[in-house]
Amino acid sequence: MTDVLDRAEQKTELKVVGGRPIRPDGADKVTGRAAFGADLNVAGQLVGKVLRSPHAHARIVSIDARKARALPGVKAVVTGDDFPNLASEMHEGGESASNLRDLAMNVIARDKALYDGHAVAAVAAISNAVADQALELIEVVYEELPHVLDVEDAMAPGAPVLHQHLFTQGVDPKPAAPSNVAMRHRLGRGDPDAAFAEADVVVEGRYVTKAVHQGYIEPHACVASWAEDGQCEVWASSQGAFMVRTYCAKVLGLEISNIRVTPAEIGGGFGGKTTVYLEPLALALSRQSGHPVKMVMTRDEVFRATGPTSASVMHVKLGAKADGTITAAEVELKYQAGAFPGSPVGAGCMTALACYDIDNFTITGWDVVTNTPKVAAYRAPGAPIAAFAVESALDDLALKLGADPIELRLKNAVRDGAKASYGPTYRNIGFVETLEAIRDSEHYKAPLGPNQGRGVAAGFWFNVGGESTAAVHVSEDGSVAVVTGNPDIGGSRASMAMMAAETLGVAVEHVRPRVADTASIGFSMVTGGSRTTFATGMAVVQAAEKVIDDLKRRAAVIWDTTPEMVEWTEGRAVCLDPAKGEAKPLTLAALAAQSAKTGGPISAEVALNAQGAGPGFGVHVCDLEVDPETGHVTVVRYTAAQDVGRAIHPSYVEGQLQGGVAQGVGWALNEEYIFDREGRMENAGFLDYRVPVASDLPMIDTILVEVPNPRHPFGAKGVGEVPIVPPLPAAANAVRRAIGVRMAELPMSPPKLRAAMDGKAG
Amino acid sequence: MTDVLDRAEQKTELKVVGGRPIRPDGADKVTGRAAFGADLNVAGQLVGKVLRSPHAHARIVSIDARKARALPGVKAVVTGDDFPNLASEMHEGGESASNLRDLAMNVIARDKALYDGHAVAAVAAISNAVADQALELIEVVYEELPHVLDVEDAMAPGAPVLHQHLFTQGVDPKPAAPSNVAMRHRLGRGDPDAAFAEADVVVEGRYVTKAVHQGYIEPHACVASWAEDGQCEVWASSQGAFMVRTYCAKVLGLEISNIRVTPAEIGGGFGGKTTVYLEPLALALSRQSGHPVKMVMTRDEVFRATGPTSASVMHVKLGAKADGTITAAEVELKYQAGAFPGSPVGAGCMTALACYDIDNFTITGWDVVTNTPKVAAYRAPGAPIAAFAVESALDDLALKLGADPIELRLKNAVRDGAKASYGPTYRNIGFVETLEAIRDSEHYKAPLGPNQGRGVAAGFWFNVGGESTAAVHVSEDGSVAVVTGNPDIGGSRASMAMMAAETLGVAVEHVRPRVADTASIGFSMVTGGSRTTFATGMAVVQAAEKVIDDLKRRAAVIWDTTPEMVEWTEGRAVCLDPAKGEAKPLTLAALAAQSAKTGGPISAEVALNAQGAGPGFGVHVCDLEVDPETGHVTVVRYTAAQDVGRAIHPSYVEGQLQGGVAQGVGWALNEEYIFDREGRMENAGFLDYRVPVASDLPMIDTILVEVPNPRHPFGAKGVGEVPIVPPLPAAANAVRRAIGVRMAELPMSPPKLRAAMDGKAG
Repeated sequence: MTDVLDRAEQKTELKVVGGRPIRPDGADKVTGRAAFGADLNVAGQLVGKVLRSPHAHARIVSIDARKARALPGVKAVVTGDDFPNLASEMHEGGESASNLRDLAMNVIARDKALYDGHAVAAVAAISNAVADQALELIEVVYEELPHVLDVEDAMAPGAPVLHQHLFTQGVDPKPAAPSNVAMRHRLGRGDPDAAFAEADVVVEGRYVTKAVHQGYIEPHACVASWAEDGQCEVWASSQGAFMVRTYCAKVLGLEISNIRVTPAEIGGGFGGKTTVYLEPLALALSRQSGHPVKMVMTRDEVFRATGPTSASVMHVKLGAKADGTITAAEVELKYQAGAFPGSPVGAGCMTALACYDIDNFTITGWDVVTNTPKVAAYRAPGAPIAAFAVESALDDLALKLGADPIELRLKNAVRDGAKASYGPTYRNIGFVETLEAIRDSEHYKAPLGPNQGRGVAAGFWFNVGGESTAAVHVSEDGSVAVVTGNPDIGGSRASMAMMAAETLGVAVEHVRPRVADTASIGFSMVTGGSRTTFATGMAVVQAAEKVIDDLKRRAAVIWDTTPEMVEWTEGRAVCLDPAKGEAKPLTLAALAAQSAKTGGPISAEVALNAQGAGPGFGVHVCDLEVDPETGHVTVVRYTAAQDVGRAIHPSYVEGQLQGGVAQGVGWALNEEYIFDREGRMENAGFLDYRVPVASDLPMIDTILVEVPNPRHPFGAKGVGEVPIVPPLPAAANAVRRAIGVRMAELPMSPPKLRAAMDGKAG
Repeated sequence: MTDVLDRAEQKTELKVVGGRPIRPDGADKVTGRAAFGADLNVAGQLVGKVLRSPHAHARIVSIDARKARALPGVKAVVTGDDFPNLASEMHEGGESASNLRDLAMNVIARDKALYDGHAVAAVAAISNAVADQALELIEVVYEELPHVLDVEDAMAPGAPVLHQHLFTQGVDPKPAAPSNVAMRHRLGRGDPDAAFAEADVVVEGRYVTKAVHQGYIEPHACVASWAEDGQCEVWASSQGAFMVRTYCAKVLGLEISNIRVTPAEIGGGFGGKTTVYLEPLALALSRQSGHPVKMVMTRDEVFRATGPTSASVMHVKLGAKADGTITAAEVELKYQAGAFPGSPVGAGCMTALACYDIDNFTITGWDVVTNTPKVAAYRAPGAPIAAFAVESALDDLALKLGADPIELRLKNAVRDGAKASYGPTYRNIGFVETLEAIRDSEHYKAPLGPNQGRGVAAGFWFNVGGESTAAVHVSEDGSVAVVTGNPDIGGSRASMAMMAAETLGVAVEHVRPRVADTASIGFSMVTGGSRTTFATGMAVVQAAEKVIDDLKRRAAVIWDTTPEMVEWTEGRAVCLDPAKGEAKPLTLAALAAQSAKTGGPISAEVALNAQGAGPGFGVHVCDLEVDPETGHVTVVRYTAAQDVGRAIHPSYVEGQLQGGVAQGVGWALNEEYIFDREGRMENAGFLDYRVPVASDLPMIDTILVEVPNPRHPFGAKGVGEVPIVPPLPAAANAVRRAIGVRMAELPMSPPKLRAAMDGKAG
């Protein structure tokens, strides 16, 4: 099972990895010392604010800012005219790709406002009040255009077309006219039509989900300064300071190294902070005003103008033999991209059937623009909604076959050596073990109460590697600094310190992890895609190994022997040279104290592009109770099992599972973007857009299935995205079993559930 | 002359090095954006202030802070009791060594206050006013003790002894009783007594100098935060963030990596910011209060409580043949250390005769404690005062022999192969060239006006190397970041960027230099000792060379050839493999764009302990005019020539020479610490302690003599300290020739000059 592919000796006796030390950022976060995006203030800063379109789709005829500029205390006003027009160019990030032209036009509208909330101008002023007043004084003449919000409406002939330059890609022949369909994705294998014809059982369904927001606690915030010589500083909360640097440089036409981005603490991102909104505006306002500019979004702005994930309409058809073997699948995914192309439908297609070994299938995905905010990555982008469709259909199949849903999945589960639906061959995966863990759990066998149902569902995420840089510096007293360029969104400081400590053989308390600014460490892709513990961790481990090589060389100098005669063990150099008699081992502290005599500071940096992240699988079981009178759903018990490779810090891994479940349950039961007839969002606030709070949920139980990833020194793989994939179908399948009705549209809010129960009764 | 010792190919055709690009920190400094120590404010910060001893020497009987603590708004009060008692342990810095116990006791007094201004307590409060009031409420009971200020008084039998544990080192037998003499230094060669007996001419003199301050514009300032989990942050202006980190850790008993120090811009240091004063107090106040604490010294505090350099009493005797060959020398240096041992008398001894090749000499140095502020490094520490004595005596010798002072020095000058008075053998030095440059200058031949005199003098400084770390990061667009850990006190950001650009073959505008915090780059010794351009520059060049090796490897991957078949030239990889036909050269930008496919981010770090800094020599000629009525001296013309190795950025090098001359002229003519009878400084402010201002000086002319240092890739050596060594004797020798009286005591202020002229007349 754990055949090591790339690494002859994977460390198995671990002293630090797998423990649960106190998190290095803990004290600062509970005492309020931690500085988030809005906590920074610099001398002379102005307040920056954004004027946003009140229309879902409108031509911007003119913008007259003269009155605003004349207002005392207003120091700058910028519009789209203050930004260069970029050519279309794709930029690959950690978790998503951006078209830089679209990115720039999403930051600030040019000819057209494409959604309610789209930025059309920004001001910098000496106070909040003056800035607000200035926004009111900007006179924008709009020519309202017909808008389209729904993905199928947008695909329909005659729909209002958002972009005249947009011609569907991935179809043959190329279309003659522009449309809202940016791209068609296709995957397939075998002969699905023949297989469906021969199937003993066929199930089929149409599934609908609504746009939901990542719901991070901290709104977007930054301070930016553009100096007279073109040198820029940005302090911002994001999932990637290097991403902010690159995107700002591109949107503003700057050389990348002219911008330094210092990462603040981040109060949640979940993929939604892998792009820029305010930062280029703040820089442009700073350039014009000559002052640093601070911008902080309101919650209303976060909802209206930052990426939710896609709404979708999906169709799934499964065919199986009477013994449960799935022989045919047909999946069609229509994902809403928002105002610019780039929904996660590609990942939706790749993940939809990734858990199962099916000989004949076809998957079609459609990337569709609408007059809604441009979607952004949201935890396992595209996967939860595809899983909602496929795993719901699978549950219907189990019901039709009278099969246990876990056994049905075990029968069809991908195993080592299987060719994934999206191409590669699986190695060292732990899906079967994860299914077995749920099957064998006490929870899965426990009795249910009245009005309760139990749903199970599986989920998949690739996990990615990618480019990371890490440095390990040894202080004069032997204490250690570990420096990376990845904002810590889920415990990476703890895991980096632990992996360095494990490698060096020292106590984790002697290792201080830090996230550096973009001028102080080499390039690192965003913290996202579940790549950081894997890829950046690999860079940390390799840097620590370089330090050990150096320490052995230094010990050899001191002992007058060769480095080969020095062994590094338990944080000490041990002399193996018999000619040196009883040479006393040299600790890290002892070697650090002598560093000046043995070659200078002890320090190593490693930059790499990590491959082999290792896909992760999750299986969830959800017990819930439906109030027959109100349709209100209470989750009463929930267990999430996941193939986590090896848990570096199990508490954090459990936390990732619990957090993913909480978000997934919210998505399943309550969350949705609601628009009025004019295409304006009606529930842009946490009172009306309801995310689950602690009292809404039971304690989420977790089972960590450890099938070590042979491509990582400690067997780690990404864990943060898989757990949001199964909850949507797990909850829907539980509802199905509680009330006997298949809820094919999310969220399963009380009115919908009541209606469904009434329909069944009636 | 320039035989390359360590480097077969020293780059000689330079495109960037030797140019004068706009300084990277220039715009920020002229527009006021640059953030110095006092410019930082953080949320919730308190104001920290220090209660200082009003007595030059007093036992602290008791400190009662109850009333201060009870004052509303007072959040912390610390005294010596809040700090650990350290064992005596020497810590080597870049330019000086510190005894950590003494350092800690200088930061805050324990049993005794040892000088007027010695910190005895510190408070943190919500405002300046409350902090001031709190200081007044602290009740300190002192028992006054007899004090001693003068170095010879302190050495006299029966003098008040500052430290009962201090027994003179370097004497045999060891003394039975404690005294104020911390150490005797001795150097010697040959048989001076015999040589003096055979000399044709002997000159002799007693020389006296006063304590002078470095006079940096920016007072010491910091903000410090001690979090609940023991993690500390310090923002401070200093010559070494790593120095601040280490010293704070030692003084407070912390692990080094628990402190992160972020360097602010520095408004002058000149050696005086190579130690800590406020930072440990601010941290202790932060620990007690739970808030960040900001502390900023007043100018009065800077003068009374931070290091000036030594006052001294010196004796020099020279013997020569009639042809000018110096055959014997005897030098005795008594240097004031201030309240704790550690004057720069050791360096004074080593530099005193370093310019000359003398067969018989003896040099004795005395390190003497007094009830005055502990001295700190000041530009070429110890050398200017020793040079004042030796070069004054040499001028008397020239007068006695009727010799031209330059020719006399040329006759005795050290040349390649000579054994330096302090030990090593000189290689690739440029002293003779520097003397010749002055001799052949138009200035040296120009006529003088009435009441004018022309003085010449030489000066020497070792320059040092030492431990530095540098990183070079290439951004995705090929622009480059150069990161070091050395605060930029004299243009190091410019020189680092230039050396990286030269090495990489790109325009300097594409290279952004940054000074990182202590968590983001490896250890680097202080910016001092004239080490940074040499040692840190060497690390930058080596890191850039590592990047080039990596770029060649990547180009080879792209071209499917071997790295040996790739040449890096003019910022591009060129394919030498004939099998590859017309492979188009790959620029840095092109390679950066493909970095993900060729191994990840392009980044390299180098840590080293640089050796071979190469000593520097300066020769100055000073024309000045003495007002016969008032004794006021006007410098009318001044030329400084110096062996600078190779000037990386000549404007900065010229600026170093000009600045050194300005400081040296102030030292020679006006500056001195004046104490009242109780040992309190009487002139602790820039109105009464007069440094030269622009209108006091002519434009200083400079001659850069370039004898490349073969131990550095571009031939650089340190340039910042040599130019403060010759001005004291150059001015004194000019006065001697203007008025015919040898001024053997500095400063040569108008009252003293008038008295000397009256004495001559009378």
